[in-house]
Amino acid sequence: MIKFDRFKFHPLKKKWNLLDLIINLKDCIKSKSISDNFLIKDISSINYPEKDTIIFIEKKNTLIKKKQINSLLIFDDFDNYNNSKNKNKIFVIDLSKTYWKVINMLLFHEDSIDFQDEFDFIDNSYISKFAHIDQSSKLYNNCIVGRGVTIGKNCIIKNNVVIKNSIVGDNVIIGDNSSIGTSGFGFDLNNMGACNILPQIGIVVIEDNVRIGSNCTVDRAKIDTTYIGENSMIDNLVHIAHNVQISNNACLAAQTGISGSTKIGKNLISGGQSGFSGHLKIGDNVIVAAKSGVTKNIPDKSVVAGFPATDINKWKKMIIKQRKDGHK
Amino acid sequence: MIKFDRFKFHPLKKKWNLLDLIINLKDCIKSKSISDNFLIKDISSINYPEKDTIIFIEKKNTLIKKKQINSLLIFDDFDNYNNSKNKNKIFVIDLSKTYWKVINMLLFHEDSIDFQDEFDFIDNSYISKFAHIDQSSKLYNNCIVGRGVTIGKNCIIKNNVVIKNSIVGDNVIIGDNSSIGTSGFGFDLNNMGACNILPQIGIVVIEDNVRIGSNCTVDRAKIDTTYIGENSMIDNLVHIAHNVQISNNACLAAQTGISGSTKIGKNLISGGQSGFSGHLKIGDNVIVAAKSGVTKNIPDKSVVAGFPATDINKWKKMIIKQRKDGHK
Amino acid sequence: MIKFDRFKFHPLKKKWNLLDLIINLKDCIKSKSISDNFLIKDISSINYPEKDTIIFIEKKNTLIKKKQINSLLIFDDFDNYNNSKNKNKIFVIDLSKTYWKVINMLLFHEDSIDFQDEFDFIDNSYISKFAHIDQSSKLYNNCIVGRGVTIGKNCIIKNNVVIKNSIVGDNVIIGDNSSIGTSGFGFDLNNMGACNILPQIGIVVIEDNVRIGSNCTVDRAKIDTTYIGENSMIDNLVHIAHNVQISNNACLAAQTGISGSTKIGKNLISGGQSGFSGHLKIGDNVIVAAKSGVTKNIPDKSVVAGFPATDINKWKKMIIKQRKDGHK
Repeated sequence: MIKFDRFKFHPLKKKWNLLDLIINLKDCIKSKSISDNFLIKDISSINYPEKDTIIFIEKKNTLIKKKQINSLLIFDDFDNYNNSKNKNKIFVIDLSKTYWKVINMLLFHEDSIDFQDEFDFIDNSYISKFAHIDQSSKLYNNCIVGRGVTIGKNCIIKNNVVIKNSIVGDNVIIGDNSSIGTSGFGFDLNNMGACNILPQIGIVVIEDNVRIGSNCTVDRAKIDTTYIGENSMIDNLVHIAHNVQISNNACLAAQTGISGSTKIGKNLISGGQSGFSGHLKIGDNVIVAAKSGVTKNIPDKSVVAGFPATDINKWKKMIIKQRKDGHK
Repeated sequence: MIKFDRFKFHPLKKKWNLLDLIINLKDCIKSKSISDNFLIKDISSINYPEKDTIIFIEKKNTLIKKKQINSLLIFDDFDNYNNSKNKNKIFVIDLSKTYWKVINMLLFHEDSIDFQDEFDFIDNSYISKFAHIDQSSKLYNNCIVGRGVTIGKNCIIKNNVVIKNSIVGDNVIIGDNSSIGTSGFGFDLNNMGACNILPQIGIVVIEDNVRIGSNCTVDRAKIDTTYIGENSMIDNLVHIAHNVQISNNACLAAQTGISGSTKIGKNLISGGQSGFSGHLKIGDNVIVAAKSGVTKNIPDKSVVAGFPATDINKWKKMIIKQRKDGHK
Repeated sequence: MIKFDRFKFHPLKKKWNLLDLIINLKDCIKSKSISDNFLIKDISSINYPEKDTIIFIEKKNTLIKKKQINSLLIFDDFDNYNNSKNKNKIFVIDLSKTYWKVINMLLFHEDSIDFQDEFDFIDNSYISKFAHIDQSSKLYNNCIVGRGVTIGKNCIIKNNVVIKNSIVGDNVIIGDNSSIGTSGFGFDLNNMGACNILPQIGIVVIEDNVRIGSNCTVDRAKIDTTYIGENSMIDNLVHIAHNVQISNNACLAAQTGISGSTKIGKNLISGGQSGFSGHLKIGDNVIVAAKSGVTKNIPDKSVVAGFPATDINKWKKMIIKQRKDGHK
C-alpha cells in the first residue's frame, strides 16, 4: 500500500497516549491487558499494521498475527482477544461504537460537523489552502479540491468535480460531476443512521494516466487506500467503493459498480452495468461481460458472464438450454 | 403523511374559486355537476383527500369514497364520474392535460419557465431567501438550496448538492453531487415531451439521521411526499423515484433504484444494483440480494434474490439446477 | 445527420493541406497512394463521408464505397487499402495512434490540456463567450455552458448542469447535476490510459421538447452526432453513450444505459436499469421491460424482457419453467 500522511487529509484533533485513551474508552471496555504506554501516532488496519497505532480487529479477522506489534489491538471477540499475545489489547462490547469513539477523539473527518477546510477561489473553482495542484494541470469550472489532495502534472479535471482525500498522479482526466474521495458506505446494521456512521479516514490513490468519466463516485478507504492503477479507463456513472484495489489497465464500462474491498488484477475488461460483490479477488486479464454480477473470486484469464457470473461458454450454453426449455 | 405548505415550495400563482376555474377548463370538460362554490385552497391526492381542494382520479383508481368531500373531483372515466356522489365533479377528455392546465393555472413550479426563486450567496453556496437552514448545520461548497426548503440541526451537506422542495430533519448527511427534491418522471405516453410534463408539486421529506451518498437522485412526489425514514443509509448513485416511501433504518447499497410510489417497510437491506418496480408494498425486515429485480409485493421478513426476485433459497436451487442443466 | 461546424466546438489548431499532413504522419504510414493535394477542411466519418476531409476506416468497416471521394482515406487493413479506388489513401500501422495524432494536429478538444474556453459569469452560471443561449431560456445556478453550445427557446436548465459540445433545441428541460456533451469512452485496448484517449470531436444534438432527468450523462459522438429526438423523456441517472441515435418520443426510465452507436427507433419505452449493447438497431414502437439487457437488434413493435433480452412472452414462459424446475 502507498503510505500517506493521514493527518494531511483528516487533521489530528489531539495527541493521545495509550493510557489516557484507555481511560476515555472505559465505557466500551470489557477486558483489557495493557503493559505499555506510547504516544498514539495513527490508526492502522489489520492488513497493514503499524507500530504505535490502534488496530481494530473484527470477529471475522481470525488471523491474529503471532508476532507482537507495539500497538493497541481492539477486539470484539473474546477468543481472539484471549489468544492474542500482543502487549496491549482490549476486548470491547461494540467494535463499531469503539471505532466511532476512537476516531472522533483522534481526528477530524468530513462526516463530523467540526471538520474544517479553507478554500481559495481560483479560476472558478474552490481549492483548499491545504491542497497541492501541479501548475501544469487544468481545472475547468466549479470544482472543489479538498484538504490534503495532491494532483500531479498535466491532469484535466472537468467541471463540477469534487476531489477530496485523494492523491492523483500525472496525466489523469476526471469527467464532469464526478465525486472522488467521498465517504465509503461505513454502516453497521446495529448502529444505523448518519450519527453512527463509521468515519472513513483513508484516501483514494489514482495513478498516472487514469481516465475517469462523468458522474462517477470513487469512495475513499476506511483506513487504507482505494486504489486505481495506471492507465485504467473508467466510463460514466461507475461506482468504486471503499478499499477497492484496481490494478493497471482496467477498462470499466458505464454504470459498473465494484463493492468494498474487492481486488482486481491487471487488464480487467468489464462491460456496462456489471457489478462486483465485496471482498473478492479477481485475477489478471479477466473479461466480465456486460450486466454480469460477479459474486465469487475469478482466476486469471477468465471470461465470465451472467448473474451469478460464470464461465461465458457455460453461460451461453445455459441460456440456449433455458430458451429451448422455455418453449416446450 | 406529513403535512406541508405546498405554496412555500411552489408559490401560488392566483387564488381561484371553483366556478371560475370550471369556466377556464371548459375545453377539457365533457360532463360536469357542480353544486357548490368554494375558494380552492390546494390540490390533494386520492390517498390524502382534503377539503376545498381539487382531486384528480385516474381510471384505475376505482376506489371512489362514498362519503362526500367538499372538493372538486376530476375523473377521466365516465362510470367513476357517474357513480360518484360528490357534490362537485367533472368528467374530462384527457386527465393529464387537465392536470397540466389546472396546476399551471394555480401555481408556479420549477418546470415552468416563470418559476422564480431568489438566492443569497453564503459560504460558497446559493441559498434561497425562502429557505431555512439551522445554523448548526454545515454546507460545503457550490450547493443550491431552493425555496421552501428547511434543513434541521447538525446536518452536513457536502459539495455541489442540490436540495429543492424538501424538508430535511436533524443530523442528516448528504453526499457530493446529489440531487434531492428533483422533478419526478411525470410523463404521460399520450402527451410526450418536456412541454407536456406533468408538474410535480409535492416534496421530499428526509427524517433525522438519514445518510445519503454521492451522486444520488431523490425525486419529489407528484402531489404528496417522497419519504425517507429515520436512520436510513443510502449509498452512492441510488435513485429514489417520486412518491416512494422508505421506512426507518433502510440500508440501500450503491446503484439501487426504487420506482415510483413503492412503499418499503422498516429495516430493509438492499444489495447493490437492485431495482424495485413501482407501486409495490415491501414488508418489514426484508433483505433483497444485490442485483435483484423486485417486481411483486414482498411480505415481512422475506429474503429475496434474482430477477424477477424470489425467495433466495428457491433462487439458489434454481441457479444450481440451471447450471447443471446447462452442462448437459 | 444534422450538419454542424465542428470548429465552433473544437477550435481549429492549424490549417493543413494533405501533403504536409502526410509528411507529419510518416512514422505511422506503411503504404500510401496520394495523387492529389487539397486543403483539409474537416474530419468525416465513414457513415457521412465528406469531400476534402480525412476518413478513418477500421478493419471491420469492410464497406468501401466504390465511388471515389476527394478525401484522404486512412486504413488499418491492407486488403481494404489495396481494394480502395480512392485517389488518396494511406495504410497505417496503428489506426488509433494515427487518429490521435491527426486530431491533435488539427484541432483543440477538451481532453487536450491546451483546449481553451472563456466564460462569463451570468446569473450564477459560467457561460462560454462562444455559446449562444436564447434569452427566453432559463438556467438555474452553477451551470457550465461550454464553447459552441447553442440553446434554443424556453429551455429550463436546472442547477449544476454541464453542457458542452451540444446543440439544444427549444423547450428542452435538463435536470440537476447532469452532464451533456461529455467525452465518449474513446479507448483502444491496445493504447490504454488518459494519454492515449481517442479525441471525441463530435457533438450532441438534443431536439425540441426533450426532457432529461438528474445526474444523467450524454456523451458526444466521436466524429458525428449523438442524437436525442423530439419529445423524448429521459429519467435520472441514465447514460447515453457516444454516437447513440434516439428517435422521437423515447421514454427511458431511470438508470438505463445505452452503449455506443446504437440506433433506436421511434417511441421506445424502456424500463429502469435496462442496458443496450453497442451498435444495435432497435426498431420503432419497441418496449423493453425493466432490467433487460438488449444484446441484439430488435424489430419494430417488439416487446422484450430479460437478459439477453427476448420476446417477453417467451421470457415469461422461461421464467415459469425455471421456477418449476428449480423446485424439483
